[in-house]
Amino acid sequence: MLDAMTDPYLLTPGPLTTSATVKAAMRRDWGSWDSDFNAMTAEICRRLLAHANARDSHACVPLQGSGTFAVEAALGTLIDPARTTLVLSNGAYGKRLAALLERMGRPFEVLDSGDTAPPSPRAVAERLKANPAIGYVAVIHCETSSGILNPLAAIAEAVAAEGRELIVDSMSAFGAVPVDARRTPFLALVSSANKCFEGVPGFGFVIARRDALAAASGRCHSLSLDLHDQWRYLERTGQWRYTPPTHVVAAFRQALDEHDAEGGVAGRLARYTANRDALVAGMRRRGFATLLEDRWLSPIITTFLSPAHPGFDFPRFYAELKARGFIIYPGKLTEVESFRIGSIGRLDVAVIARLLEAVDAALATLGVDDCRPAA
Amino acid sequence: MLDAMTDPYLLTPGPLTTSATVKAAMRRDWGSWDSDFNAMTAEICRRLLAHANARDSHACVPLQGSGTFAVEAALGTLIDPARTTLVLSNGAYGKRLAALLERMGRPFEVLDSGDTAPPSPRAVAERLKANPAIGYVAVIHCETSSGILNPLAAIAEAVAAEGRELIVDSMSAFGAVPVDARRTPFLALVSSANKCFEGVPGFGFVIARRDALAAASGRCHSLSLDLHDQWRYLERTGQWRYTPPTHVVAAFRQALDEHDAEGGVAGRLARYTANRDALVAGMRRRGFATLLEDRWLSPIITTFLSPAHPGFDFPRFYAELKARGFIIYPGKLTEVESFRIGSIGRLDVAVIARLLEAVDAALATLGVDDCRPAA
Ligand SMILES: Cc1ncc(COP(=O)(O)O)c(C=O)c1O
Ligand SMILES: Cc1ncc(COP(=O)(O)O)c(C=O)c1O
Repeated sequence: MLDAMTDPYLLTPGPLTTSATVKAAMRRDWGSWDSDFNAMTAEICRRLLAHANARDSHACVPLQGSGTFAVEAALGTLIDPARTTLVLSNGAYGKRLAALLERMGRPFEVLDSGDTAPPSPRAVAERLKANPAIGYVAVIHCETSSGILNPLAAIAEAVAAEGRELIVDSMSAFGAVPVDARRTPFLALVSSANKCFEGVPGFGFVIARRDALAAASGRCHSLSLDLHDQWRYLERTGQWRYTPPTHVVAAFRQALDEHDAEGGVAGRLARYTANRDALVAGMRRRGFATLLEDRWLSPIITTFLSPAHPGFDFPRFYAELKARGFIIYPGKLTEVESFRIGSIGRLDVAVIARLLEAVDAALATLGVDDCRPAA
Repeated sequence: MLDAMTDPYLLTPGPLTTSATVKAAMRRDWGSWDSDFNAMTAEICRRLLAHANARDSHACVPLQGSGTFAVEAALGTLIDPARTTLVLSNGAYGKRLAALLERMGRPFEVLDSGDTAPPSPRAVAERLKANPAIGYVAVIHCETSSGILNPLAAIAEAVAAEGRELIVDSMSAFGAVPVDARRTPFLALVSSANKCFEGVPGFGFVIARRDALAAASGRCHSLSLDLHDQWRYLERTGQWRYTPPTHVVAAFRQALDEHDAEGGVAGRLARYTANRDALVAGMRRRGFATLLEDRWLSPIITTFLSPAHPGFDFPRFYAELKARGFIIYPGKLTEVESFRIGSIGRLDVAVIARLLEAVDAALATLGVDDCRPAA
């Protein structure tokens, strides 16, 4: 059993429901200059590198701010501005990669596969063959806006075969979906504290190849987001360059312990998959349809199409679920009416079962007796 | 009496010792999309604006990351790149302003008054008269590297008299040193959660004139640090643009309540001043000398010159104090051997008295019987 709670469960892609023990780890103040805190930072980086099997080749550089800050830092620091980046886009976070590069004035191209299909490794290979100016490919691991799990291994293989570099936004996947730097070569992988490791929000991190970090001095467009500087400073002093979110870092160390205790990435993947399976089966029994075909569903978050029934109103549905202790998420797609339910965080199938009961009660209150989407 | 603690006291310029109740406010997970959390953000911004008497003219825009991120965001978003910024520098944080502008490729000049003297309002007026290309003046309110409190009101007056705009890094002063936007005109004032409001680290905020924010669309060099976008998104949706550090935000709301309960800025200033007075008097009784003349001492942090006695070794002194429950700070000056002791955070004169006893014990262990600096 997970912790008993009176607070609502967050069935969202982060911030998510964390354990009481992770939150309790924040009940202490740390001097950010002190050796005790430095040891904690070093331990976290070492453990994250191990989870990606990247100890020999990469460094883990934490960065204050939300996950997007870490993505911007990786793009701004690691990409040679003279070369083009091919952005694989199939949702809001892919679009954000393009928006970040656009704002920095870095050359990029977009390969868009729509909201419901993954990028095709073959199409990637073709684009790379056709355009030698492309030096980098940037991809979203789990595109959280739809829930699609993109085929990272096959894309990495295509990118490596063409001798280009891969940057992975694995914000919502790392920690629950296996990644092995020796078998899936990448220049950088970005994630954050408040996703599958089940910490609280406040920092992101980049697992970046050490040779590329070393070559990136002075390149970043922003001092605050300069990963090279952050890395060098950490190596030299053991400290973050500017004030770290000390309490959030302490919570993350506790979260890593709980991740290990659950069996690491494999254990977490098993629980999230069970949550997702219970959720999708239960919702389908009620007539709901998923946006995606089964083969693209991630264990992270699932998008359901809104019922066509005239009584269905998302804000009311949301409020009814919230009144019963469950916070879900609106859709992040512009084309289809939809909403999203996450399967990550401190939740298990018992929680999903209670959520499904709350869904029944909410639908009854709204007078919705048919959950099928518009044809 | 403040909270009894077994953890070390942080006598540092932040992160600092926070109350048990501020930390306890982090024992809940918040959906960053949810209306309850949005209401909390709105309340915090409203209250911060009121503390600067800036409700009619300015907006308060919070930003994820450390204080430096918020400074960079203010400079990058609010400054017209065609105009020069005059940076008033008298320590490490003034130098950082210049480094931020340099990295962004924005034109700037530096007026340096050395490590131990404030910028002269007359010298500022002269520089502004001499160079019409200067559109902005950037100043540090309390230069935390030495502890000097710069004469903000007189500088603001000189800047306004010449028709230029003022940007204030009040990171370590706002909340304890009064600021009134109606009497001290500024374009932007930057501070953060983990200084005089006694929250935990994880976000900064900018109190920025609304007309300037509105005119700054698309100007920032960084998407993550774009204050205009953050502001617009907050206005439109009530939400932070990217995932906020929800627990840190909740702690800050509690910290604001405790700030009010203490009598707001005036109450806090009184306690910090009493702490500083007890500290400086006690250290001087032991033979220590301050870096600064009395009239420039801030109630925030004080720099002491290292004793010339051959037995004095800062790392050992630090370790001895730490073993007794007090964490102090090394100096941030390159020219003089020194260390710093903060007077901010959940501390009172009883804590300072115990610190002074710990100083005695540490000095005895080191065999230092004369604390006077080199002549
Ligand atoms: C795939 C992906 N990329 C980027 C982000 C942005 O993270 P943040 O909101 O922390 O900036 C998210 C957040 O959910 C995400 O899922
Ligand atoms: C005056 C001043 N400016 C900027 C900063 C930087 O803040 P942070 O370390 O949160 O980036 C500090 C931190 O102490 C400061 O005192």
